[in-house]
Amino acid sequence: MADVILVLNAGSSSIKFRAFDIEGAQLALVSHGQVEGLFTAPHFVAYNAKGEKTGEKSWGEGAKLEHSDAIAHLGAFLRGHGAGHRLIGVGHRVVHGGAHFTKPVLTSPEVLDQLDKLTPLAPLHQPHNIKPIRIIAERNPGLPQVACFDTAFHATQAPIAQAFALPESITKNGVRRYGFHGLSYEYIASALPDIAPEAARGRTVVAHLGNGASLCAMRAGKSVASTMGFTAVDGLMMGTRCGNLDPGVLLYMLDELGMNARDIEDVLYRQSGLLGVSGISGDMRALLASSEERARFAVDLYVYRIGRELGSMGAALQGLDAIVFTAGIGEHSKEIRQRVCEAAAWWGIELDASANADASANGGARISTASSKVSAWVIPTNEELMIARHALALIDRQRKGAAE
Amino acid sequence: MADVILVLNAGSSSIKFRAFDIEGAQLALVSHGQVEGLFTAPHFVAYNAKGEKTGEKSWGEGAKLEHSDAIAHLGAFLRGHGAGHRLIGVGHRVVHGGAHFTKPVLTSPEVLDQLDKLTPLAPLHQPHNIKPIRIIAERNPGLPQVACFDTAFHATQAPIAQAFALPESITKNGVRRYGFHGLSYEYIASALPDIAPEAARGRTVVAHLGNGASLCAMRAGKSVASTMGFTAVDGLMMGTRCGNLDPGVLLYMLDELGMNARDIEDVLYRQSGLLGVSGISGDMRALLASSEERARFAVDLYVYRIGRELGSMGAALQGLDAIVFTAGIGEHSKEIRQRVCEAAAWWGIELDASANADASANGGARISTASSKVSAWVIPTNEELMIARHALALIDRQRKGAAE
Repeated sequence: MADVILVLNAGSSSIKFRAFDIEGAQLALVSHGQVEGLFTAPHFVAYNAKGEKTGEKSWGEGAKLEHSDAIAHLGAFLRGHGAGHRLIGVGHRVVHGGAHFTKPVLTSPEVLDQLDKLTPLAPLHQPHNIKPIRIIAERNPGLPQVACFDTAFHATQAPIAQAFALPESITKNGVRRYGFHGLSYEYIASALPDIAPEAARGRTVVAHLGNGASLCAMRAGKSVASTMGFTAVDGLMMGTRCGNLDPGVLLYMLDELGMNARDIEDVLYRQSGLLGVSGISGDMRALLASSEERARFAVDLYVYRIGRELGSMGAALQGLDAIVFTAGIGEHSKEIRQRVCEAAAWWGIELDASANADASANGGARISTASSKVSAWVIPTNEELMIARHALALIDRQRKGAAE
Repeated sequence: MADVILVLNAGSSSIKFRAFDIEGAQLALVSHGQVEGLFTAPHFVAYNAKGEKTGEKSWGEGAKLEHSDAIAHLGAFLRGHGAGHRLIGVGHRVVHGGAHFTKPVLTSPEVLDQLDKLTPLAPLHQPHNIKPIRIIAERNPGLPQVACFDTAFHATQAPIAQAFALPESITKNGVRRYGFHGLSYEYIASALPDIAPEAARGRTVVAHLGNGASLCAMRAGKSVASTMGFTAVDGLMMGTRCGNLDPGVLLYMLDELGMNARDIEDVLYRQSGLLGVSGISGDMRALLASSEERARFAVDLYVYRIGRELGSMGAALQGLDAIVFTAGIGEHSKEIRQRVCEAAAWWGIELDASANADASANGGARISTASSKVSAWVIPTNEELMIARHALALIDRQRKGAAE
């Protein structure tokens, strides 16, 4: 009977899942999918490792499916399709570990209470990440559950890289740069030694360019700096988020435009970025396909901001040996990779155009020429596998501790 | 009889002045000083070009001296001390020229009305900068007055360097990066060809490190990017201003700390920076002299943030040929210059320690070694002289136009 680790990534209106078989020390994907449209038009879909659909259900417009209902459905589905499998634990993506949780942790009522206290730091995500842990703990108290944090990978940053120049009256509340996308960066750091040993040892900037986007400066695989700070709205321009912004703009919005905090949050998180600048779409593919001037300007700005922030990351590293592209846009848009590499040519990046054009299909590919001073790479990220690895490691350790 | 240009830099509670003799095409300082403590404990002091005190007056604690009274006093003082001099015009420092005023301008009632409309972009400064222009125009309607803008030098930046990734609903109000300290940067750009011709032609970052602080990336003497954006609170850490800040921190201050816009403004502008981080002082000299750990950390953070932003400026320039230090800290703190150059050593800056130690007294000095790939310089800035030059040029043009 094969052991299985389930990975959950829960948001306000969706729960994504991936189930991994444990084969020796290896984790192999066996099933993945999601329940989305909770509270509005719930829809469940599941696939096997080959991508073949293995389950689907719609509850219909207006059906009020809660997180607990979705988890019940998912549990029943997995039991029904899991002949010969035994669930040994669940790993959860949790956005914020605060200053305390700098590693994955086996959850307990005490840990969950501590994680609740971090909600003010990530009010849009933290409660939804935690909810499924409590739901499962209630139904299956003996099942080990592991919380993995998007902030934890950045705990290696020096205090100076984490600090804002704010007074203690503000910073004592935990206001500092945490950085996010940590599970993605940790996965890339774990993949680098096999794919690009010199980048693994050297000064490397990883560009996680998805719907959210950030850069991480790594020295020998450890985070030294990141463009995301206290929240996931800072740094790079994103699909609908503004990235780097003069804080004085928010005072102007309050004082002169009569906006309140919710109005501002809506603009900064949901009406800005590619969508806001183009007025057309927050989807890079749509903008690259558009001939409109505003679409062109939005893409130009997106690339320019990456170039500027890459300069700041390179300064944190005092030089640059490699750049790695990952996540949706990073893995799939050869045009954006090309334009970023061109903007960064002064660093000594020489793109291999045909390697770049072929790279999307590969599991990890060099896209710079052999003579390029700074190497460039595409490596698909896998946050869920990283979570499954962490969960397995902590469950193994718990078992060994119990057996001693 | 020598012609004189008066330069005024008016704030909410002070008016600084400098008077320049016109000798041929040259401007020579003849008198300078200030009225400070308006509305609280007004005090006037004036010096001649040698730095000898030529006038002083205190109105006493609680005396309510207004801007108009201060200007009347200053006018009387200058007439009394100006035997053989004739005032031909006044140049004013005005913080904001908006998108329209990209050059100095002869003021008129229409121009002043347009400048009033920019007050929402700089509410703390713009009204005080404009007030003396109206006061003088009322008393001496025929006297030419010229407004010089701290934003104008940055008008050469590409739209992409000026844009925030915000929707048009916000940007249509003029929300973009303007950049400040423009009169200082323009003066440095004007001095570079004589002092450092290669820096004048090349990719140069000027570090204006005063009580306010910013960097300007110049290509061939033109502004390409700056760390200050929509307001003078963005970018570098300053004496009491925070610089670069995740916009999400302001939402946290509103939502979780129960602060309002005035509270936040007070923290960001007056309680942050060196003062806020050290808890000791906003004055760099006091921190460098302190043995306290928090003072050390504040200075470390100050230098680190310059290094990071220098990376971003270098990316805007696609490389770096020279760095120039100016303004209070830049001109007088050899320790900060040394530490910034050490943090930037990876660019190829090699400091000449003895040249750096001697530089403060000089009018413009190279502080890098002869073999340094990137050269480093100290050049004292002179915003008032820049304003006087602009005023003289526009007054000359007006006279020529009238004569034709």
